[in-house]
Amino acid sequence: MQQQIKLIKRPSGTPTKEDFEFAEVPIGEPAEGEVLIRTNYISVDPYLRGRMNNVKSYVPPFELDSVITSAVIGQVIESKSAHFEKNDVVTGALGWQEYTVVDQSGIRKIDTNLAPASAYLSVLGMTGLTAYFGLLDIADPKEGETVVVSGAAGAVGSVVGQIAKIKGAYVVGIAGSNEKIEYLKNELGFDDAINYKTVDIKTALANACPNGIDVYYENVGGEIGDAVLPLLNKFARIPVCGAISSYNNQEADIGLRVQGYLIKSSALMKGFTVGDYASRFKEGSEALAGWLQAGKIQYEETITEGFDQTIDAFLDLFQGANLGKAVVKVSDIE
Amino acid sequence: MQQQIKLIKRPSGTPTKEDFEFAEVPIGEPAEGEVLIRTNYISVDPYLRGRMNNVKSYVPPFELDSVITSAVIGQVIESKSAHFEKNDVVTGALGWQEYTVVDQSGIRKIDTNLAPASAYLSVLGMTGLTAYFGLLDIADPKEGETVVVSGAAGAVGSVVGQIAKIKGAYVVGIAGSNEKIEYLKNELGFDDAINYKTVDIKTALANACPNGIDVYYENVGGEIGDAVLPLLNKFARIPVCGAISSYNNQEADIGLRVQGYLIKSSALMKGFTVGDYASRFKEGSEALAGWLQAGKIQYEETITEGFDQTIDAFLDLFQGANLGKAVVKVSDIE
Repeated sequence: MQQQIKLIKRPSGTPTKEDFEFAEVPIGEPAEGEVLIRTNYISVDPYLRGRMNNVKSYVPPFELDSVITSAVIGQVIESKSAHFEKNDVVTGALGWQEYTVVDQSGIRKIDTNLAPASAYLSVLGMTGLTAYFGLLDIADPKEGETVVVSGAAGAVGSVVGQIAKIKGAYVVGIAGSNEKIEYLKNELGFDDAINYKTVDIKTALANACPNGIDVYYENVGGEIGDAVLPLLNKFARIPVCGAISSYNNQEADIGLRVQGYLIKSSALMKGFTVGDYASRFKEGSEALAGWLQAGKIQYEETITEGFDQTIDAFLDLFQGANLGKAVVKVSDIE
Repeated sequence: MQQQIKLIKRPSGTPTKEDFEFAEVPIGEPAEGEVLIRTNYISVDPYLRGRMNNVKSYVPPFELDSVITSAVIGQVIESKSAHFEKNDVVTGALGWQEYTVVDQSGIRKIDTNLAPASAYLSVLGMTGLTAYFGLLDIADPKEGETVVVSGAAGAVGSVVGQIAKIKGAYVVGIAGSNEKIEYLKNELGFDDAINYKTVDIKTALANACPNGIDVYYENVGGEIGDAVLPLLNKFARIPVCGAISSYNNQEADIGLRVQGYLIKSSALMKGFTVGDYASRFKEGSEALAGWLQAGKIQYEETITEGFDQTIDAFLDLFQGANLGKAVVKVSDIE
């Protein structure tokens, strides 16, 4: 038998432990074309909150009383597929459980010589690709332009800022603790960083961006997104990746209307999800792997140990506790 | 001597007559390379309200105690330019006054055989080009898509809807009187039209757009703009041309934040002003003239007679009184 985690209630506002349940279920046997995987790492991500609501969105909602799924790294312990061998390390969108039987089409091998396995949940995985396509396809920052990124110490924001630096931009990060600010400036080479919890964000942004804002990579929304609008330069671009400040709102998200600001600066806002770029994942993965190997991109992980800590690790995301990618380590790779 | 109209106070909220003054000034004499023009038509436009504030925007603010300028049609009555002859009909950004002395570089001739002179202030002028580039460059509607336009009976919106019909879209207009609704459906061939003053706009929009909204051409902002957001289809496009509902606001324009909606539908919003497309005006003018001659585009004007009515005609814009382009006729073309 093994443990798995189910969604048993749709969260009202901020999720709580009562919305989830651990269940004991059989491990299962692979049929022809399937493999049995032991879970090594589970990715916990803010976007999963959206799937817990029963509303139409870019991914269908989670079913109640079913296992939650997200990006997972695991190791093949039994293979009935010609494409996978025992001990292969693989990734796929899999359940929050200790073992998974999956069809060979639902996983792909990863190269743990290039980077540790967990990197395939962050900089070489979904969050790295999200940073890459949002910034380069939508905003295309030019040398000397000012790029502001919110959620800058998170898994997406930290890569956004580093790619913007590679492209020669002046990069300002917004994050929520002094530890994160120091990390952005001293470790990742951001030109400036703002702790929005300790300053007036409007004043601090204006001071940090004396030449205005050409690109704002939006991860958080809310008052931070509002504060950017008056500072936009002509032809500014805003890739809209996330709005974590509103994910647990129970009422409409009310703030500055954008129309007047977009007209004044002929600015663009474009929402996206990484799936929009599925046909270009190879391009993005190769670029990110190249920068990683060249030492031009660093990444950080907040690794929580133990399958029984998975729910806590997810809930912590909404407290801003994580630096870089939040990952749960379930078992060692052998 | 002649009359001119100056801005003497920056309006606080909705402009009033007290913000303007008629002054008597000399007519002036053209020097070498200049012409003297008698004003025939003056364009009054919502965007002029923005120039009455003392804030940085895409065009500099009007100076206090100076003559107001906008697009004007006039006839040359004395020429010291090799490029213009007496009786040529010309257009340019000129003052609100009965006569103007202007350098030859500030005006261009118009062809009154192709269309009446006043059309060069609307469908063949700035508002037609605004419709053309915002719709076709930013939104590029495809056959069968649903295009919604607000301010649909205005000078821009009415052309937007007709171009969208030419492109094979299903077109829904939003306007503020039953007369306008009848005009859109019966005269301009819109598929549907909503009088936002007599219905619940959210319900009415959902009913009028059973397949969702692919393109929303934004002219008004406010609650109408908010009502569109939940209906956006995947990869929807929103050219943001105007937000007349907020032009007279004295406080921040507060409403639905857009981030969550843009992410859910991978939608794009893009602010613009027609000047962004200056290098392509010839393309736009030729396309509009072609459709006009082929009878594929109709246009309407609300012509107010008499220079002394110019201020009233401008103030009426914010009451939604005009159908099509608002123009003041100052004198006959001879």
